[in-house]
Amino acid sequence: MLEKIDLNKKISKEEYKKQISDFRKKAGKLQRQARELNIPIIILFEGWDAAGKGTLINKLIHPLDPRGYNHHLSKKPVEDEKMRPFLWRFWKKIPARGQIAIFNRSWYQRVIEEFIEYEVPEQEWSFSYSDINFFEKQLITDGYLILKFFLHINKDEQKERFLKLSDNKATAWRVTKEDWKHHHQYQLYLHYYNKMIDETDKNYAHWEIIEAENHEYAVLKIFEHFVKSVENKIKEVTNTIIVGDTSSEKIVETSTKKYIPSVLDKVDLAKDIDKDKYREKVELYQEKIRNLQHQLYRERLALVIVYEGWDGAGKGGNIRRLTEMMDPRGYQVFPVSAPTEVEKNYHYLWRFWQVMPKAGHITIFDRSWYGRVLVERIEGFCTKDDWQRAYQEINEMEEQLYHSGAVIIKFWLHIDKDTQLKRFEARKNNPDKRWKLTTEDWRNREKWDLYKSAVDEMIDETSTKMAPWTIVESNSKHYARIKVMETIIDELEGKLDCSYFS
Amino acid sequence: MLEKIDLNKKISKEEYKKQISDFRKKAGKLQRQARELNIPIIILFEGWDAAGKGTLINKLIHPLDPRGYNHHLSKKPVEDEKMRPFLWRFWKKIPARGQIAIFNRSWYQRVIEEFIEYEVPEQEWSFSYSDINFFEKQLITDGYLILKFFLHINKDEQKERFLKLSDNKATAWRVTKEDWKHHHQYQLYLHYYNKMIDETDKNYAHWEIIEAENHEYAVLKIFEHFVKSVENKIKEVTNTIIVGDTSSEKIVETSTKKYIPSVLDKVDLAKDIDKDKYREKVELYQEKIRNLQHQLYRERLALVIVYEGWDGAGKGGNIRRLTEMMDPRGYQVFPVSAPTEVEKNYHYLWRFWQVMPKAGHITIFDRSWYGRVLVERIEGFCTKDDWQRAYQEINEMEEQLYHSGAVIIKFWLHIDKDTQLKRFEARKNNPDKRWKLTTEDWRNREKWDLYKSAVDEMIDETSTKMAPWTIVESNSKHYARIKVMETIIDELEGKLDCSYFS
Repeated sequence: MLEKIDLNKKISKEEYKKQISDFRKKAGKLQRQARELNIPIIILFEGWDAAGKGTLINKLIHPLDPRGYNHHLSKKPVEDEKMRPFLWRFWKKIPARGQIAIFNRSWYQRVIEEFIEYEVPEQEWSFSYSDINFFEKQLITDGYLILKFFLHINKDEQKERFLKLSDNKATAWRVTKEDWKHHHQYQLYLHYYNKMIDETDKNYAHWEIIEAENHEYAVLKIFEHFVKSVENKIKEVTNTIIVGDTSSEKIVETSTKKYIPSVLDKVDLAKDIDKDKYREKVELYQEKIRNLQHQLYRERLALVIVYEGWDGAGKGGNIRRLTEMMDPRGYQVFPVSAPTEVEKNYHYLWRFWQVMPKAGHITIFDRSWYGRVLVERIEGFCTKDDWQRAYQEINEMEEQLYHSGAVIIKFWLHIDKDTQLKRFEARKNNPDKRWKLTTEDWRNREKWDLYKSAVDEMIDETSTKMAPWTIVESNSKHYARIKVMETIIDELEGKLDCSYFS
Repeated sequence: MLEKIDLNKKISKEEYKKQISDFRKKAGKLQRQARELNIPIIILFEGWDAAGKGTLINKLIHPLDPRGYNHHLSKKPVEDEKMRPFLWRFWKKIPARGQIAIFNRSWYQRVIEEFIEYEVPEQEWSFSYSDINFFEKQLITDGYLILKFFLHINKDEQKERFLKLSDNKATAWRVTKEDWKHHHQYQLYLHYYNKMIDETDKNYAHWEIIEAENHEYAVLKIFEHFVKSVENKIKEVTNTIIVGDTSSEKIVETSTKKYIPSVLDKVDLAKDIDKDKYREKVELYQEKIRNLQHQLYRERLALVIVYEGWDGAGKGGNIRRLTEMMDPRGYQVFPVSAPTEVEKNYHYLWRFWQVMPKAGHITIFDRSWYGRVLVERIEGFCTKDDWQRAYQEINEMEEQLYHSGAVIIKFWLHIDKDTQLKRFEARKNNPDKRWKLTTEDWRNREKWDLYKSAVDEMIDETSTKMAPWTIVESNSKHYARIKVMETIIDELEGKLDCSYFS
């Protein structure tokens, strides 16, 4: 692949001068248009050491308005980042709508240096490419434009550039032992670069190879690709807006074609537990969970717990009992409500990625990304396309978490309609609890049946081996708390070395 | 101090049960009230190892709504954090209005472990206390409530707790060599804790010492202090709203009592440079700045450059020429416009703290925190009290940056009113530049004289030895660019070892 590229392409300084100022003007203009159309753009640069990434990036960003872009230099992941899914640190840096993020090195480090240096655990080797492809596809489906540049020079040219830097007192320090080591591994890197391009060159996220031996040629080719790609994206967006019937997209479309047998109908809500037994078990289990939490910390396991359920099903109290004896240094409860204005400017999974636990830690979600296929679906906050696509996107995200070594436990707290009414009334009549009851609670109750079929579909579509749903019978709050704790204890005891507590 | 505290205070389990549920209810209620009143609350816990910070924090947060608080475990600063002012990582975590942030360990690590372990550079020893006091005072003046708990146990009790943990197979790993080392240094720590309390126990941010040998006693005392403090703060806020004449506070009050001789009047705006000389110098200086940037990186110096100036003074073009040859890995341009809804929920300096450069890096602010005493003052976006207090707050912040080893260079780009009009007209008539001209530009122009006296006062109040202002004559854009570059080069050559380029 890369071997076959003709690196002798050149452009004269005169020709360069003629073309560059036009490109620069266009680039600034396109940035403004893309911002008005709320198009988020990711531009990443990969390539050989000394291929000129820094200089070339500076040329590209120069005509851009700094209010509209961020530049990220991706170094090796630090300790804290190594303890999360490897894409976590990049999710944190994706641009908001209308913004540009430029990456000098990127998530592709994962499948180059980190492979070559054996820093990727073996069990994750095969997943890294699919994780990357999922990531880019999710962003692109959400309206992102991704430009991927690979800066190519050959081994001799690299050597010459290193020597030139070394010969100058002011720049000699920039050539490190590691650089020379990589230089000697040129063939090995070539192999991995070819593989990288082969595995991730998609029609929706194409690799643009830049012959980078001649500086002027490289600059112009980068600008050309930037201009063409942004122009096309703008056309695409403008056409959709003009041609597409946006009003019909917004229709609250909640029905689904296929028939799904209701799992909720089969739940035995009469399940209960007597008070004394409950008290005894709570105490015992809280102690166990505290010990398991410490063991989880020692073994560097990450745990994601998702709570979903009907309003009034008792999520809050359930979470409180679960965490009562936990060590607060190791867990975080993340309550989810409607996205803020800032969050709306990103992919809907962005805000959840931020708070995924690192190895040895627990994040408990009080509601979660499943809002996409529940409230956002039912209330028409997203299009039918959006929530239908979400099942797969969610499964992909959970798969990535699983790949990174996390355990995922998901609960649906189930009650019947009468119980909900009783609890709402009780809240209404208790001045200390009245604040808990909102108009949305009543609104959602009106749509009980719509929600019910959405829940059935959600459980059907997103119960995977890696992240199964547990339905928790919650007419009895006591029973529900015990079941949640038992489920977590079982799952963790299966994963952790528990000889310490015996 | 701490030696004299009676650690034998106890409370019976029965008494505890009687009181605790009332406290818990009150705590939840107060949290909701504080949220409604937009009061931000910081609660920090310091104290001896094994004093029970984790357990006690868990008790306190339990009745709170997790939507309203964040819990931060402060570990040793990581590499990236060590390269910034030491309060940087805490500025990033202060709560938004209406929120609670709970710190398990805090900025006080700075004056305890980091002093004891000699991790604080000697020249910063004397500043750390004043930096901390500035920080807390700035937040409190901005409406924050800060509760500081010190959990106290004596040396024997600590030993007993360590031994008890060590004796249990499941918890033995939690007692580290470092813990024992600290235990043997109990007297040394005591000295520093006493000093810490002495230096930072202020009436606006009081240290509450908690006798932590008896768990029940400690829990109740923590709740009691929390409840009392939040109640008082709520009273204070409610009274201000009712009694205080808020309408008068909002009056656009731009005049100042004292007479300040205008520095702007003395500026010679005829200064110019001829084109050839300009071209020659730009090329030479850009090369120099690139070298100085690399040297700054090697010597781990942080550089803050502030651009302020009239609309149309040429800030954008000036910044572009300055950065044209810079290495994009080492600098960031941060353009400042009106704060977003999220940013408004924090102290006004919060958003600037986020992007302060780390050692070896440059942040260029295109407008800055000086907006507080310019546009926010003139347009009445803050009260007179706010902007008058801001001079000192800004000086304090710049002083902290200076303490941490940063260089601060501030430019006021000065033009006259006629030049501004000419540039506005030119923009209006150029389709490629028309977007640059906003209605605010015309609005601000109307208030030229008000702005002028605000600028004079700003320069008078905030020209310090650590962070002086440079007025840049900018009727000639060429002259202005050269002067900015020369100023930066002079400043850096004075600070850096430049033998490399000779």
